[in-house]
Amino acid sequence: MKLYYGPGACSMGIHVILEEIGKPYALEPVALKDGAQHQPAYKAVNPKSKVPALAREGRPILTEWPAIAFCLATSSPEAGLWPKDPEEQVRALEVMDYVAGTIHAQGFTRMFRPANFAPGEADLDKVKAQGRANAEKGFAIIDQQWQGGDWVLPSGYSVADAALFFVEYWAAKRAGVPLPPRLAAHFERMLARPAVRRALEQEGLSA
Amino acid sequence: MKLYYGPGACSMGIHVILEEIGKPYALEPVALKDGAQHQPAYKAVNPKSKVPALAREGRPILTEWPAIAFCLATSSPEAGLWPKDPEEQVRALEVMDYVAGTIHAQGFTRMFRPANFAPGEADLDKVKAQGRANAEKGFAIIDQQWQGGDWVLPSGYSVADAALFFVEYWAAKRAGVPLPPRLAAHFERMLARPAVRRALEQEGLSA
Ligand SMILES: N[C@@H](CCC(=O)N[C@@H](CS)C(=O)NCC(=O)O)C(=O)O
Ligand SMILES: N[C@@H](CCC(=O)N[C@@H](CS)C(=O)NCC(=O)O)C(=O)O
Repeated sequence: MKLYYGPGACSMGIHVILEEIGKPYALEPVALKDGAQHQPAYKAVNPKSKVPALAREGRPILTEWPAIAFCLATSSPEAGLWPKDPEEQVRALEVMDYVAGTIHAQGFTRMFRPANFAPGEADLDKVKAQGRANAEKGFAIIDQQWQGGDWVLPSGYSVADAALFFVEYWAAKRAGVPLPPRLAAHFERMLARPAVRRALEQEGLSA
Repeated sequence: MKLYYGPGACSMGIHVILEEIGKPYALEPVALKDGAQHQPAYKAVNPKSKVPALAREGRPILTEWPAIAFCLATSSPEAGLWPKDPEEQVRALEVMDYVAGTIHAQGFTRMFRPANFAPGEADLDKVKAQGRANAEKGFAIIDQQWQGGDWVLPSGYSVADAALFFVEYWAAKRAGVPLPPRLAAHFERMLARPAVRRALEQEGLSA
Protein backbone atom coordinates (compact mmCIF):
# COMPACT_ATOMS: atom_id res chain seq x y z
CA MET A 1 0.00 0.00 0.00
CA LYS A 2 1.23 3.47 -0.84
CA LEU A 3 -0.17 6.85 0.18
CA TYR A 4 0.32 9.77 -2.18
CA TYR A 5 0.31 12.83 0.03
CA GLY A 6 1.26 16.47 0.28
CA PRO A 7 3.02 17.48 3.49
CA GLY A 8 0.43 19.27 5.60
CA ALA A 9 -2.38 18.69 3.08
CA CYS A 10 -5.67 16.97 3.91
CA SER A 11 -3.91 13.67 3.17
CA MET A 12 -2.37 14.17 6.64
CA GLY A 13 -5.59 12.74 8.12
CA ILE A 14 -5.25 9.55 6.07
CA HIS A 15 -1.60 9.37 7.10
CA VAL A 16 -2.77 9.40 10.74
CA ILE A 17 -5.18 6.53 10.03
CA LEU A 18 -2.38 4.48 8.45
CA GLU A 19 -0.21 5.07 11.51
CA GLU A 20 -3.07 4.11 13.84
CA ILE A 21 -3.53 0.84 11.94
CA GLY A 22 0.18 0.14 12.03
CA LYS A 23 0.47 -2.15 9.02
CA PRO A 24 3.35 -1.55 6.58
CA TYR A 25 2.80 1.11 3.91
CA ALA A 26 4.87 3.44 1.77
CA LEU A 27 4.67 7.21 1.53
CA GLU A 28 5.03 9.09 -1.75
CA PRO A 29 5.12 12.88 -1.54
CA VAL A 30 3.50 14.95 -4.29
CA ALA A 31 4.91 18.47 -4.59
CA LEU A 32 1.59 20.32 -4.73
CA LYS A 33 3.23 23.74 -4.55
CA ASP A 34 5.25 22.99 -7.69
CA GLY A 35 2.16 21.74 -9.50
CA ALA A 36 3.34 18.12 -9.61
CA GLN A 37 -0.30 17.03 -9.32
CA HIS A 38 -0.90 18.39 -12.83
CA GLN A 39 2.12 16.69 -14.41
CA PRO A 40 1.67 13.54 -16.52
CA ALA A 41 3.45 11.32 -13.97
CA TYR A 42 0.89 12.02 -11.25
CA LYS A 43 -2.09 12.27 -13.59
CA ALA A 44 -1.31 8.70 -14.61
CA VAL A 45 -1.71 7.77 -10.94
CA ASN A 46 -4.73 9.97 -10.21
CA PRO A 47 -6.31 11.90 -13.08
CA LYS A 48 -8.20 14.03 -10.54
CA SER A 49 -4.84 15.69 -9.70
CA LYS A 50 -5.55 15.56 -5.96
CA VAL A 51 -4.15 13.97 -2.85
CA PRO A 52 -4.82 11.78 -0.92
CA ALA A 53 -4.68 8.81 -3.29
CA LEU A 54 -4.09 5.28 -2.08
CA ALA A 55 -2.40 2.64 -4.22
CA ARG A 56 -3.33 -0.91 -3.22
CA GLU A 57 -1.98 -4.27 -4.44
CA GLY A 58 -3.87 -5.45 -7.51
CA ARG A 59 -6.69 -2.94 -7.20
CA PRO A 60 -7.23 0.41 -8.90
CA ILE A 61 -6.12 3.61 -7.24
CA LEU A 62 -8.48 4.86 -4.53
CA THR A 63 -9.34 8.53 -4.05
CA GLU A 64 -11.69 10.72 -1.94
CA TRP A 65 -10.92 11.18 1.73
CA PRO A 66 -14.05 9.54 3.20
CA ALA A 67 -13.84 6.57 0.83
CA ILE A 68 -10.16 5.96 1.66
CA ALA A 69 -10.89 6.22 5.39
CA PHE A 70 -13.82 3.80 5.09
CA CYS A 71 -11.66 1.35 3.12
CA LEU A 72 -8.78 1.43 5.60
CA ALA A 73 -10.97 1.27 8.71
CA THR A 74 -13.29 -1.51 7.53
CA SER A 75 -10.47 -3.66 6.17
CA SER A 76 -8.56 -3.50 9.48
CA PRO A 77 -11.40 -4.00 11.99
CA GLU A 78 -8.91 -4.94 14.72
CA ALA A 79 -7.77 -1.30 14.80
CA GLY A 80 -11.24 -0.29 15.98
CA LEU A 81 -11.42 2.81 13.79
CA TRP A 82 -14.82 2.03 12.29
CA PRO A 83 -17.73 2.04 14.76
CA LYS A 84 -19.78 -1.15 15.06
CA ASP A 85 -23.11 0.55 15.64
CA PRO A 86 -24.89 1.39 12.34
CA GLU A 87 -26.04 4.81 13.57
CA GLU A 88 -22.48 5.67 14.54
CA GLN A 89 -21.24 4.55 11.13
CA VAL A 90 -23.68 6.99 9.57
CA ARG A 91 -22.46 9.76 11.88
CA ALA A 92 -18.85 8.98 11.05
CA LEU A 93 -19.60 9.44 7.36
CA GLU A 94 -21.59 12.60 8.04
CA VAL A 95 -18.67 14.17 9.90
CA MET A 96 -16.11 13.07 7.29
CA ASP A 97 -18.24 14.44 4.46
CA TYR A 98 -18.86 17.72 6.24
CA VAL A 99 -15.17 18.17 6.99
CA ALA A 100 -14.01 17.24 3.47
CA GLY A 101 -16.77 18.84 1.42
CA THR A 102 -17.56 21.94 3.47
CA ILE A 103 -15.03 22.93 6.15
CA HIS A 104 -12.11 22.05 3.88
CA ALA A 105 -13.41 22.72 0.38
CA GLN A 106 -15.67 25.73 1.12
CA GLY A 107 -13.66 27.02 4.04
CA PHE A 108 -9.90 26.52 4.09
CA THR A 109 -9.48 26.21 0.34
CA ARG A 110 -10.89 29.76 0.06
CA MET A 111 -8.29 30.94 2.58
CA PHE A 112 -5.32 29.06 1.11
CA ARG A 113 -6.13 29.36 -2.61
CA PRO A 114 -8.48 32.31 -3.06
CA ALA A 115 -7.54 32.69 -6.72
CA ASN A 116 -9.26 29.35 -7.40
CA PHE A 117 -12.50 31.09 -6.48
CA ALA A 118 -12.21 34.68 -7.67
CA PRO A 119 -10.25 35.34 -10.83
CA GLY A 120 -9.97 39.05 -9.96
CA GLU A 121 -7.12 40.22 -7.71
CA ALA A 122 -9.39 42.76 -6.05
CA ASP A 123 -11.62 40.09 -4.56
CA LEU A 124 -9.01 37.87 -2.94
CA ASP A 125 -9.52 39.33 0.52
CA LYS A 126 -13.27 38.94 0.31
CA VAL A 127 -12.85 35.31 -0.72
CA LYS A 128 -10.50 34.66 2.19
CA ALA A 129 -12.95 36.29 4.62
CA GLN A 130 -15.78 34.16 3.26
CA GLY A 131 -13.66 31.04 3.67
CA ARG A 132 -12.87 31.96 7.26
CA ALA A 133 -16.57 32.51 7.98
CA ASN A 134 -17.43 29.14 6.41
CA ALA A 135 -14.78 27.34 8.47
CA GLU A 136 -15.91 29.04 11.68
CA LYS A 137 -19.53 28.11 10.99
CA GLY A 138 -18.48 24.54 10.30
CA PHE A 139 -16.55 24.24 13.56
CA ALA A 140 -19.46 25.80 15.46
CA ILE A 141 -21.88 23.24 14.03
CA ILE A 142 -19.64 20.30 14.90
CA ASP A 143 -19.28 21.75 18.39
CA GLN A 144 -23.06 22.20 18.87
CA GLN A 145 -23.82 18.70 17.60
CA TRP A 146 -21.06 17.03 19.60
CA GLN A 147 -22.40 13.78 21.05
CA GLY A 148 -19.19 12.10 22.03
CA GLY A 149 -17.00 12.54 25.08
CA ASP A 150 -13.32 12.85 24.29
CA TRP A 151 -13.87 11.84 20.67
CA VAL A 152 -16.37 12.77 17.98
CA LEU A 153 -18.46 9.62 18.33
CA PRO A 154 -19.86 8.38 21.66
CA SER A 155 -18.34 4.94 21.04
CA GLY A 156 -14.83 6.36 20.98
CA TYR A 157 -11.95 7.15 18.68
CA SER A 158 -12.63 6.61 14.96
CA VAL A 159 -11.75 7.81 11.47
CA ALA A 160 -14.05 10.79 12.10
CA ASP A 161 -11.47 12.11 14.59
CA ALA A 162 -8.75 11.92 11.96
CA ALA A 163 -10.93 13.97 9.61
CA LEU A 164 -11.62 16.61 12.21
CA PHE A 165 -7.92 16.65 13.06
CA PHE A 166 -6.62 17.91 9.74
CA VAL A 167 -8.93 20.94 9.69
CA GLU A 168 -8.22 21.63 13.35
CA TYR A 169 -4.50 21.54 12.47
CA TRP A 170 -5.00 24.08 9.69
CA ALA A 171 -7.09 26.28 11.98
CA ALA A 172 -4.58 26.25 14.82
CA LYS A 173 -1.27 26.15 12.95
CA ARG A 174 -1.82 27.84 9.62
CA ALA A 175 -4.86 30.08 9.51
CA GLY A 176 -5.37 31.31 13.05
CA VAL A 177 -9.03 30.33 13.02
CA PRO A 178 -10.30 30.04 16.61
CA LEU A 179 -11.54 26.61 17.63
CA PRO A 180 -14.54 26.26 19.97
CA PRO A 181 -13.33 24.95 23.38
CA ARG A 182 -14.49 21.39 22.79
CA LEU A 183 -12.62 21.23 19.48
CA ALA A 184 -9.53 22.89 20.92
CA ALA A 185 -9.45 20.18 23.60
CA HIS A 186 -10.02 17.50 20.95
CA PHE A 187 -7.08 18.88 18.96
CA GLU A 188 -4.82 18.65 22.02
CA ARG A 189 -5.93 15.06 22.59
CA MET A 190 -5.14 14.26 18.97
CA LEU A 191 -1.67 15.82 19.24
CA ALA A 192 -0.97 13.57 22.23
CA ARG A 193 -1.58 10.37 20.23
CA PRO A 194 1.62 8.58 19.20
CA ALA A 195 0.21 7.86 15.71
CA VAL A 196 -0.47 11.55 15.17
CA ARG A 197 3.00 12.52 16.36
CA ARG A 198 4.59 10.01 14.01
CA ALA A 199 2.55 11.23 11.04
CA LEU A 200 3.42 14.87 11.73
CA GLU A 201 7.09 14.08 12.16
CA GLN A 202 7.19 12.09 8.92
CA GLU A 203 5.66 15.07 7.11
CA GLY A 204 8.13 17.47 8.69
CA LEU A 205 5.41 19.32 10.62
CA SER A 206 5.41 20.66 14.15
CA ALA A 207 3.08 19.16 16.75
CA MET B 1 -39.11 9.74 7.94
CA LYS B 2 -39.19 13.10 6.20
CA LEU B 3 -36.97 14.45 3.44
CA TYR B 4 -36.30 18.17 3.32
CA TYR B 5 -35.62 18.92 -0.33
CA GLY B 6 -35.50 21.64 -2.94
CA PRO B 7 -37.21 20.82 -6.22
CA GLY B 8 -34.47 19.96 -8.70
CA ALA B 9 -31.68 20.34 -6.09
CA CYS B 10 -29.17 17.62 -5.27
CA SER B 11 -31.74 16.26 -2.79
CA MET B 12 -33.42 14.86 -5.92
CA GLY B 13 -30.96 11.95 -5.78
CA ILE B 14 -31.99 11.10 -2.21
CA HIS B 15 -35.62 11.39 -3.29
CA VAL B 16 -34.91 8.74 -5.95
CA ILE B 17 -33.39 6.45 -3.31
CA LEU B 18 -36.48 6.81 -1.10
CA GLU B 19 -38.70 5.94 -4.06
CA GLU B 20 -36.53 2.92 -4.89
CA ILE B 21 -36.84 1.67 -1.31
CA GLY B 22 -40.60 2.19 -1.36
CA LYS B 23 -41.22 2.59 2.37
CA PRO B 24 -43.51 5.43 3.53
CA TYR B 25 -41.90 8.85 3.93
CA ALA B 26 -42.94 12.48 3.83
CA LEU B 27 -41.59 15.27 1.64
CA GLU B 28 -41.02 18.80 2.89
CA PRO B 29 -40.02 21.39 0.29
CA VAL B 30 -37.55 24.12 1.25
CA ALA B 31 -37.82 27.24 -0.93
CA LEU B 32 -34.11 27.67 -1.63
CA LYS B 33 -34.69 30.46 -4.15
CA ASP B 34 -36.46 32.54 -1.49
CA GLY B 35 -33.70 31.88 1.03
CA ALA B 36 -35.90 29.73 3.30
CA GLN B 37 -32.79 27.70 4.18
CA HIS B 38 -31.42 30.74 6.04
CA GLN B 39 -34.62 31.43 8.02
CA PRO B 40 -34.90 30.39 11.68
CA ALA B 41 -37.53 27.73 10.96
CA TYR B 42 -35.18 25.73 8.72
CA LYS B 43 -32.02 26.52 10.67
CA ALA B 44 -33.70 24.87 13.65
CA VAL B 45 -34.00 21.74 11.49
CA ASN B 46 -30.57 21.95 9.85
CA PRO B 47 -28.18 24.68 10.98
CA LYS B 48 -26.04 24.00 7.89
CA SER B 49 -28.82 25.65 5.81
CA LYS B 50 -28.60 22.96 3.14
CA VAL B 51 -30.75 20.26 1.64
CA PRO B 52 -30.98 17.27 1.64
CA ALA B 53 -31.73 16.70 5.32
CA LEU B 54 -33.46 13.61 6.59
CA ALA B 55 -35.61 13.61 9.73
CA ARG B 56 -35.89 10.17 11.33
CA GLU B 57 -38.05 8.95 14.26
CA GLY B 58 -36.26 9.51 17.54
CA ARG B 59 -32.87 10.27 16.02
CA PRO B 60 -31.16 13.58 15.26
CA ILE B 61 -31.45 15.14 11.82
CA LEU B 62 -29.15 13.58 9.22
CA THR B 63 -27.29 15.62 6.59
CA GLU B 64 -24.65 15.13 3.85
CA TRP B 65 -25.66 13.35 0.68
CA PRO B 66 -23.32 10.31 0.95
CA ALA B 67 -24.16 9.79 4.64
CA ILE B 68 -27.91 9.90 3.99
CA ALA B 69 -27.55 7.51 1.06
CA PHE B 70 -25.47 5.11 3.16
CA CYS B 71 -28.01 5.25 5.99
CA LEU B 72 -30.99 4.58 3.74
CA ALA B 73 -29.31 1.84 1.71
CA THR B 74 -27.81 -0.08 4.62
CA SER B 75 -30.97 0.11 6.73
CA SER B 76 -33.10 -1.33 3.91
CA PRO B 77 -30.85 -4.12 2.62
CA GLU B 78 -33.78 -5.81 0.85
CA ALA B 79 -33.80 -2.93 -1.64
CA GLY B 80 -30.34 -4.00 -2.83
CA LEU B 81 -29.00 -0.45 -3.12
CA TRP B 82 -25.82 -1.05 -1.09
CA PRO B 83 -23.34 -3.49 -2.64
CA LYS B 84 -22.39 -6.57 -0.62
CA ASP B 85 -18.78 -6.70 -1.77
CA PRO B 86 -16.46 -4.54 0.40
CA GLU B 87 -14.51 -3.22 -2.59
CA GLU B 88 -17.74 -2.17 -4.29
CA GLN B 89 -18.85 -0.43 -1.10
CA VAL B 90 -15.65 1.57 -1.20
CA ARG B 91 -16.25 2.43 -4.86
CA ALA B 92 -19.82 3.48 -4.14
CA LEU B 93 -18.55 5.94 -1.52
CA GLU B 94 -15.81 7.16 -3.85
CA VAL B 95 -18.32 7.95 -6.60
CA MET B 96 -20.78 9.60 -4.21
CA ASP B 97 -18.05 11.74 -2.68
CA TYR B 98 -16.68 12.76 -6.05
CA VAL B 99 -20.13 13.69 -7.33
CA ALA B 100 -21.13 15.61 -4.18
CA GLY B 101 -17.81 17.23 -3.34
CA THR B 102 -16.37 17.91 -6.79
CA ILE B 103 -18.77 17.64 -9.75
CA HIS B 104 -21.56 19.32 -7.78
CA ALA B 105 -19.73 21.66 -5.39
CA GLN B 106 -16.78 22.65 -7.61
CA GLY B 107 -18.64 22.29 -10.92
CA PHE B 108 -22.35 23.02 -11.05
CA THR B 109 -22.42 25.33 -8.03
CA ARG B 110 -20.02 27.62 -9.93
CA MET B 111 -22.41 27.60 -12.90
CA PHE B 112 -25.61 28.08 -10.90
CA ARG B 113 -24.37 30.45 -8.17
CA PRO B 114 -21.21 32.12 -9.46
CA ALA B 115 -21.60 35.01 -7.01
CA ASN B 116 -20.86 32.58 -4.17
CA PHE B 117 -17.38 32.26 -5.64
CA ALA B 118 -16.47 35.66 -7.07
CA PRO B 119 -17.79 38.70 -5.30
CA GLY B 120 -17.05 40.88 -8.37
CA GLU B 121 -19.66 41.12 -11.14
CA ALA B 122 -16.95 41.20 -13.79
CA ASP B 123 -15.77 37.70 -12.97
CA LEU B 124 -19.08 35.84 -13.05
CA ASP B 125 -18.57 34.52 -16.57
CA LYS B 126 -15.09 33.26 -15.74
CA VAL B 127 -16.43 31.47 -12.68
CA LYS B 128 -19.17 29.83 -14.73
CA ALA B 129 -16.65 28.71 -17.35
CA GLN B 130 -14.43 27.24 -14.66
CA GLY B 131 -17.42 25.39 -13.20
CA ARG B 132 -18.28 23.99 -16.61
CA ALA B 133 -14.68 22.82 -17.10
CA ASN B 134 -14.67 21.18 -13.66
CA ALA B 135 -17.96 19.37 -14.36
CA GLU B 136 -16.74 18.19 -17.76
CA LYS B 137 -13.50 16.91 -16.24
CA GLY B 138 -15.49 15.12 -13.54
CA PHE B 139 -17.75 13.41 -16.04
CA ALA B 140 -14.74 12.42 -18.17
CA ILE B 141 -13.05 10.81 -15.18
CA ILE B 142 -16.15 8.83 -14.21
CA ASP B 143 -16.44 7.74 -17.83
CA GLN B 144 -12.79 6.64 -18.07
CA GLN B 145 -12.95 4.75 -14.78
CA TRP B 146 -16.29 3.08 -15.56
CA GLN B 147 -16.11 -0.52 -14.43
CA GLY B 148 -19.79 -1.40 -14.45
CA GLY B 149 -22.07 -2.40 -17.28
CA ASP B 150 -25.39 -0.58 -17.31
CA TRP B 151 -24.77 0.86 -13.85
CA VAL B 152 -21.81 2.49 -12.12
CA LEU B 153 -20.80 -0.60 -10.14
CA PRO B 154 -20.19 -4.02 -11.72
CA SER B 155 -22.59 -5.62 -9.22
CA GLY B 156 -25.49 -3.54 -10.47
CA TYR B 157 -27.76 -0.65 -9.54
CA SER B 158 -26.84 1.14 -6.29
CA VAL B 159 -26.94 4.48 -4.51
CA ALA B 160 -23.95 5.52 -6.64
CA ASP B 161 -26.27 5.62 -9.66
CA ALA B 162 -28.64 7.99 -7.84
CA ALA B 163 -25.69 10.30 -7.11
CA LEU B 164 -24.54 10.31 -10.71
CA PHE B 165 -28.13 10.88 -11.79
CA PHE B 166 -28.62 14.29 -10.21
CA VAL B 167 -25.54 15.79 -11.84
CA GLU B 168 -26.42 14.15 -15.15
CA TYR B 169 -29.86 15.73 -14.84
CA TRP B 170 -28.35 19.18 -14.28
CA ALA B 171 -25.95 18.64 -17.21
CA ALA B 172 -28.66 17.56 -19.62
CA LYS B 173 -31.63 19.66 -18.52
CA ARG B 174 -30.25 22.83 -16.99
CA ALA B 175 -26.67 23.59 -18.00
CA GLY B 176 -26.22 22.05 -21.44
CA VAL B 177 -23.03 20.28 -20.37
CA PRO B 178 -22.32 17.42 -22.78
CA LEU B 179 -22.26 13.95 -21.23
CA PRO B 180 -19.78 11.34 -22.46
CA PRO B 181 -21.70 8.59 -24.35
CA ARG B 182 -21.58 6.10 -21.49
CA LEU B 183 -23.04 8.64 -19.07
CA ALA B 184 -25.64 9.82 -21.57
CA ALA B 185 -26.81 6.20 -21.89
CA HIS B 186 -26.76 5.83 -18.10
CA PHE B 187 -28.92 8.95 -17.79
CA GLU B 188 -31.49 7.50 -20.23
CA ARG B 189 -31.55 4.26 -18.23
CA MET B 190 -32.13 6.24 -15.05
CA LEU B 191 -34.99 8.19 -16.65
CA ALA B 192 -36.66 4.90 -17.57
CA ARG B 193 -36.81 3.72 -13.95
CA PRO B 194 -40.25 4.05 -12.34
CA ALA B 195 -38.74 5.35 -9.08
CA VAL B 196 -36.93 8.12 -10.96
CA ARG B 197 -40.09 9.07 -12.87
CA ARG B 198 -42.07 9.27 -9.66
CA ALA B 199 -39.45 11.42 -7.94
CA LEU B 200 -39.27 13.83 -10.90
CA GLU B 201 -43.04 14.07 -11.12
CA GLN B 202 -43.36 14.76 -7.40
CA GLU B 203 -40.82 17.58 -7.76
CA GLY B 204 -42.64 19.00 -10.78
CA LEU B 205 -39.72 18.27 -13.11
CA SER B 206 -39.73 16.96 -16.66
CA ALA B 207 -38.25 13.55 -17.43
N1 LIG C 1 -12.39 15.47 -2.92
C1 LIG C 1 -11.01 15.22 -2.53
C2 LIG C 1 -10.32 16.55 -2.32
C3 LIG C 1 -8.88 16.43 -1.92
C4 LIG C 1 -8.15 17.76 -2.01
O1 LIG C 1 -8.76 18.82 -2.18
N2 LIG C 1 -6.80 17.71 -1.88
C5 LIG C 1 -5.96 18.89 -1.99
C6 LIG C 1 -4.92 18.91 -0.89
S1 LIG C 1 -5.57 19.37 0.68
C7 LIG C 1 -5.20 18.85 -3.29
O2 LIG C 1 -4.79 17.79 -3.75
N3 LIG C 1 -4.99 20.00 -3.93
C8 LIG C 1 -4.19 20.11 -5.09
C9 LIG C 1 -4.84 20.97 -6.13
O3 LIG C 1 -6.04 21.26 -6.01
O4 LIG C 1 -4.15 21.34 -7.08
C10 LIG C 1 -10.96 14.34 -1.29
O5 LIG C 1 -11.92 14.33 -0.48
O6 LIG C 1 -9.99 13.61 -1.13
N1 LIG D 1 -22.49 18.90 1.63
C1 LIG D 1 -23.90 18.89 1.36
C2 LIG D 1 -24.20 19.92 0.27
C3 LIG D 1 -25.65 20.03 -0.12
C4 LIG D 1 -25.93 21.22 -0.99
O1 LIG D 1 -25.03 21.89 -1.49
N2 LIG D 1 -27.23 21.50 -1.20
C5 LIG D 1 -27.66 22.66 -1.96
C6 LIG D 1 -28.77 22.29 -2.94
S1 LIG D 1 -28.20 21.41 -4.36
C7 LIG D 1 -28.26 23.70 -1.03
O2 LIG D 1 -28.92 23.35 -0.05
N3 LIG D 1 -28.04 24.97 -1.31
C8 LIG D 1 -28.65 26.03 -0.57
C9 LIG D 1 -27.66 27.10 -0.27
O3 LIG D 1 -26.45 26.87 -0.42
O4 LIG D 1 -28.10 28.19 0.13
C10 LIG D 1 -24.35 17.50 0.96
O5 LIG D 1 -23.55 16.70 0.48
O6 LIG D 1 -25.53 17.16 1.20
